[in-house]
Amino acid sequence: MGVSMDELQLAARNHGMPLEALRYDVTPVGLHYLLVHFDVPAAPESWRLEIGGCVDRPVSLSLDDLRALPSTTRIVTMECAGNGRARLDPHVVSQPWLAEAVGTGEWKGVEIAPLLEQAGVRDGSVDVVFAGLDRGIDGGVDQVYERSLPVGDALGGDALLAYELNGEPLPPQHGFPLRLVVPGWYGMTNVKWLERITVVDAPFTGYQQAHAYRFRRSEGDEGVPVTRMQPRALMVPPGVPDFMTRRRFVEPGTIRLEGRAWSGLAPVAAVDVSADGGATWSGADLQHPPDPAAWAGWSFEWEAAEGDHELACRARDAHGNEQPLEPEWNVGGYSNNAVQRVAVTVRR
Amino acid sequence: MGVSMDELQLAARNHGMPLEALRYDVTPVGLHYLLVHFDVPAAPESWRLEIGGCVDRPVSLSLDDLRALPSTTRIVTMECAGNGRARLDPHVVSQPWLAEAVGTGEWKGVEIAPLLEQAGVRDGSVDVVFAGLDRGIDGGVDQVYERSLPVGDALGGDALLAYELNGEPLPPQHGFPLRLVVPGWYGMTNVKWLERITVVDAPFTGYQQAHAYRFRRSEGDEGVPVTRMQPRALMVPPGVPDFMTRRRFVEPGTIRLEGRAWSGLAPVAAVDVSADGGATWSGADLQHPPDPAAWAGWSFEWEAAEGDHELACRARDAHGNEQPLEPEWNVGGYSNNAVQRVAVTVRR
Repeated sequence: MGVSMDELQLAARNHGMPLEALRYDVTPVGLHYLLVHFDVPAAPESWRLEIGGCVDRPVSLSLDDLRALPSTTRIVTMECAGNGRARLDPHVVSQPWLAEAVGTGEWKGVEIAPLLEQAGVRDGSVDVVFAGLDRGIDGGVDQVYERSLPVGDALGGDALLAYELNGEPLPPQHGFPLRLVVPGWYGMTNVKWLERITVVDAPFTGYQQAHAYRFRRSEGDEGVPVTRMQPRALMVPPGVPDFMTRRRFVEPGTIRLEGRAWSGLAPVAAVDVSADGGATWSGADLQHPPDPAAWAGWSFEWEAAEGDHELACRARDAHGNEQPLEPEWNVGGYSNNAVQRVAVTVRR
Repeated sequence: MGVSMDELQLAARNHGMPLEALRYDVTPVGLHYLLVHFDVPAAPESWRLEIGGCVDRPVSLSLDDLRALPSTTRIVTMECAGNGRARLDPHVVSQPWLAEAVGTGEWKGVEIAPLLEQAGVRDGSVDVVFAGLDRGIDGGVDQVYERSLPVGDALGGDALLAYELNGEPLPPQHGFPLRLVVPGWYGMTNVKWLERITVVDAPFTGYQQAHAYRFRRSEGDEGVPVTRMQPRALMVPPGVPDFMTRRRFVEPGTIRLEGRAWSGLAPVAAVDVSADGGATWSGADLQHPPDPAAWAGWSFEWEAAEGDHELACRARDAHGNEQPLEPEWNVGGYSNNAVQRVAVTVRR
């Protein structure tokens, strides 16, 4: 199994979070995963956010206007919906993520619900469409990157228009000057380089909404939208790696395994760890997350005996959603949250 | 042609600079290329830099000690020696870079030459060995990451011990708390998470010096060391991309092509551009670089007529070193600076 040169071009541009960075509550800039569909655009000096469509009072705001409004800061774990795609069989051609397409940011910005209320969303509105500055071609369709939220999620939820990441203005690659951050939803929701918010009175049918980012069992299947993050636990691979294979080498003894777990559907209820490839499981110690939308730390003491082992970890949330042991395939290769497996050699 | 799952694991962790980021004189953090051989280590609170070996007065310095010394700030273009490796045929298995493994940082730190003079390098010393905190296995050898410079280059050159990147403390992935920066040399020279500098009186034979990072024509060839960056020009791919193929789409008319060019061997003397796949070339306008060690901007006005085109750009330095049109193969896949080619469709 391998990937094509087209996929490699994407993998060389975009990047996951090296898993040792699971040690940070908040992921440092440059270690947070990054997926850019088209190019990182340069925002014009004249940038303003325009809010319009089915609203009584359209709004136009500069970055200074936004900064002058009451702000909210949230610690939010964000994962690409395509995380795990490269582990699927049959192979799905797109950005070839293994398990690293995740990160946690401290996002500061303005809550969107009061802004929309101020604009006056009209009765009968259905979706709120968020459009970025980034443009390109996907599936043969020339487009700016656009995604929508149902009006109920936009008005009733805790979505932010974020202008800071980790205490600094947004870096270019994370959406400068402004991006949407919707706690709990997969990454594609969080439109970067946000320029325009349009309330519409019919379901939004843009490419990224109606074609991409749907769970489909076959090409003909209309499918259902990809929305919130399924549960996942990841561990910091213990010991030291082999450069090329990334296999881990650990000395025998008591090893403290550590990692993070999250779910966009409910709080994480449990993380289990296996040191025998999933044959037997034991409960890990779970920490309180720094924000309801952030990952929870976990740890587990492993008695590492000499030999080869396969470690695995598995999260379950308070609604009973649990990671599968094997991948579940779909056309777009979304949301493969099968348990992480880490090959470890224990030796002196 | 494609890459294996082992190579994909590296490509998902490490990342190139998306080429649209060539628009920045200084690359924002998170867009600069990154190669981590083993894991990003966490520096201990007790971290100090130790300078020893064949010196009269060993030195031990805290980060505060280093910050209290006279500082130098340099804008330095840094490129991975493996840049271009994935374009080689026969295929070379390692980190599979295409052309994006480059970036330019504003590095602030302490010049190493006066520090070594203060320590008193003994007569007969040969190499200065730089050891990082990062450990792992490469080519079957358990090692910390170590590279050396000849004493003459360390004492006579402009190498820095850098503690800031772009005005902030080093990010973890770029070597916090301290890294070596050697202007003009390929990336592997610039040891991150620097912990120990040892002056030795015999040639350093560590794995990354004596086995890796050598130009070898065959496995048995002892080869010659990889040192300074060969010339390369890159362009910002014009227009907009197709998500999956990264092919570019441009409207007909006059298109301003822009990019950067660098060489670690001499100043860049010329950049030529071709719009017909390398059959004919024209000179681009070349800008003065912001630092002798930084890339130079270039631009070229292209009359884009409807149809499919292959753009290319090519740098030559003041010593007459010029990029080849086709890759030059070697065992490690180093320094493939064959000209960049960009497929463009011009259409209304």
